[in-house]
Amino acid sequence: MDSSILPVSAEDGPVYTHETVRLEEGLELECGVHLAPLDVAYCTYGTLSPARDNVILVCHALTGDQYLGEPHPLTGKPGWWNRMVGPGLPIDTNRFFVICSNVLGGCMGSSGPLSIRPETGKAWDSEFPPITMHDIVAAQAKLMDYLGIGRLFAVVGGSMGGMQVLTWVADYPERVFAAMPIATSPFHSAQNIAFNEVSRQAIFADPNWHDGHYRDFGAIPARGLGVARMMAHITYLSEEALSRKFGRRIRHEVAIAQPASSSPSLFGEMFEVESYLRHQGSTFVRRFDANSYLTITRAMDYFDLAAEHDGDLAAPFRNTSVRFCVVSFSSDWLFPTSQSRLLVRALNRAGANVSFVEIESDRGHDAFLLEEPDFDRTVRGFLNGAAEHADLRKGIV
Amino acid sequence: MDSSILPVSAEDGPVYTHETVRLEEGLELECGVHLAPLDVAYCTYGTLSPARDNVILVCHALTGDQYLGEPHPLTGKPGWWNRMVGPGLPIDTNRFFVICSNVLGGCMGSSGPLSIRPETGKAWDSEFPPITMHDIVAAQAKLMDYLGIGRLFAVVGGSMGGMQVLTWVADYPERVFAAMPIATSPFHSAQNIAFNEVSRQAIFADPNWHDGHYRDFGAIPARGLGVARMMAHITYLSEEALSRKFGRRIRHEVAIAQPASSSPSLFGEMFEVESYLRHQGSTFVRRFDANSYLTITRAMDYFDLAAEHDGDLAAPFRNTSVRFCVVSFSSDWLFPTSQSRLLVRALNRAGANVSFVEIESDRGHDAFLLEEPDFDRTVRGFLNGAAEHADLRKGIV
Repeated sequence: MDSSILPVSAEDGPVYTHETVRLEEGLELECGVHLAPLDVAYCTYGTLSPARDNVILVCHALTGDQYLGEPHPLTGKPGWWNRMVGPGLPIDTNRFFVICSNVLGGCMGSSGPLSIRPETGKAWDSEFPPITMHDIVAAQAKLMDYLGIGRLFAVVGGSMGGMQVLTWVADYPERVFAAMPIATSPFHSAQNIAFNEVSRQAIFADPNWHDGHYRDFGAIPARGLGVARMMAHITYLSEEALSRKFGRRIRHEVAIAQPASSSPSLFGEMFEVESYLRHQGSTFVRRFDANSYLTITRAMDYFDLAAEHDGDLAAPFRNTSVRFCVVSFSSDWLFPTSQSRLLVRALNRAGANVSFVEIESDRGHDAFLLEEPDFDRTVRGFLNGAAEHADLRKGIV
Repeated sequence: MDSSILPVSAEDGPVYTHETVRLEEGLELECGVHLAPLDVAYCTYGTLSPARDNVILVCHALTGDQYLGEPHPLTGKPGWWNRMVGPGLPIDTNRFFVICSNVLGGCMGSSGPLSIRPETGKAWDSEFPPITMHDIVAAQAKLMDYLGIGRLFAVVGGSMGGMQVLTWVADYPERVFAAMPIATSPFHSAQNIAFNEVSRQAIFADPNWHDGHYRDFGAIPARGLGVARMMAHITYLSEEALSRKFGRRIRHEVAIAQPASSSPSLFGEMFEVESYLRHQGSTFVRRFDANSYLTITRAMDYFDLAAEHDGDLAAPFRNTSVRFCVVSFSSDWLFPTSQSRLLVRALNRAGANVSFVEIESDRGHDAFLLEEPDFDRTVRGFLNGAAEHADLRKGIV
């Protein structure tokens, strides 16, 4: 647990590590709590260049984690971005050294509700302090310090990962060369706060919630967390994607023709989309902690870059030298293109170097995780173009 | 309870009644159950013409009821369409006789889970048989028979009310002169089934659910039903409406500045939109029964007119003489304009007399319940125009 040795020497093929670093000095959180020690769990892919100038930090979304390029240790499922990150892939690990760390507040090794609280010798559980996107990024910056990486060639992330990208640029403008906020927003909208709030209420309504101390009771609020996940999953897809994937197909021929006494006929599985959602809910609760879900959704809700600068979204980016590529997806209604446009306009006002691509897709918010050739080309093109500029600048300097 | 006397004589001002009629012969449901007796609770507004040819049946939505024009007996709130129905209003009770009945499966007096099951002497609760939109409309037709009303001048309804409008035309084409399906669809989409399924799972997850026999335990699954309502409420509004109404305004200055031990600071009320949703959830459970919610959402999910005709949505409307006005709202993402367009195209294929209006509004699905002058003009214009044609036809015949 205590430390990691970075693979700085080239090897045959991409180097892979996953580690947890414990930083005893901890982290001063925005809420005023000093969280110590601070654990940051991470995976790396590719090889760090001797000049340490080829680092891409990938920031994961709400329920993601550091296992972007390898099977998940709990579920055995492929890494969540293994079609994007790897040798020869758009984020090419033959060229770049990719780091992905579990967010602060998460449940895959970084400090969060499951961590032991030194004062009590027990897990924090629901008493884990409230955190913000700034805290999440500060923990990542501590990891970079520890790894001896001063400047990131690029920070890339979708959804909540994109909020971290923007926060990196706002908080550590000198440490970022290029930034790619994908399917994200500079603030969490009222609608998204509303969905998060329903998620939270579903968890609180679970009889196994026990005010967040469910682990003391050997229980987890699986039904509530499952309902939260089911609802969230709908918001990740478009109406078109759901219609194409499931339509109104029926899974079991039940219901209508059953006698009145058999209530399961009324309330049992019927449409494929229902069965799919239940599956999503039930598998999720095996890999994700409810207190982490609550902690991280709150951090998303707090996120509002403009509000921190008297309503001026351009302010945190004024005169930045960071190169931006903002990406949205046409059918994403959770983080709609309109919110990316607000960001792009602010970046333009700030005089930033920014390109903006709206990818045509009918797969909703989840499109950033799926096979979308236009999107892949955009990621590859932006990173390679930025790398050329980085080399050029080096040549000049 | 047993019967009602219809106000057929003119009085000073609109006549108002609300009644429950008990039809001992009952109703044969699509599932095969013979439900007897059949109670239908309804309100009327205006005066029935001596020729009984000025009847407008208004069909209510999922959580609506017959109290469209007067304060709700449980909540005291104004009738849900009292801005639309009344003397001089778009559905003008100086001219038309308006009937609105509580749907079969509902909880405001019509037969539903709260009704006593004769075989047991106890309420049906979760053993109330599964029903369909056809059953709901058949119960309304029984009410019309009882009232001696052969033909409806018009059937009007929004959302699930619009599904009933379409079902009326499909099942009783000779009994409808004009039809106004509003903010609705000829089928329940995969996305809407998915949202309903999350609602149901939230109710099932409530410890007070007791397999639907919660009333035997003196309990109601209020938290689960509240979560269901909160989520549904988000789907009734647009992102724009939520942003305008609440934005990211904070209700209590809590959270960030609190010490770590006070978990209420993290999980307590914070954004106005959260407090609003919680209020929506908690008031809803006082007026609506969970088993009714489950029964009616299932009836919506089953609804698919085309599927009943080998995928041909035009079939149920072929050569109909009914005059249609289909209305959608531009920001309605629960029943989007695309679904109304599918209906309109099918009606055109069927050779129907159909006009279609998409009302520009940024208030989402709920727009049909709100002050929308364009919509009001459309309702008034269509009904008055249809009335002229009805008179004309009478003159010819």
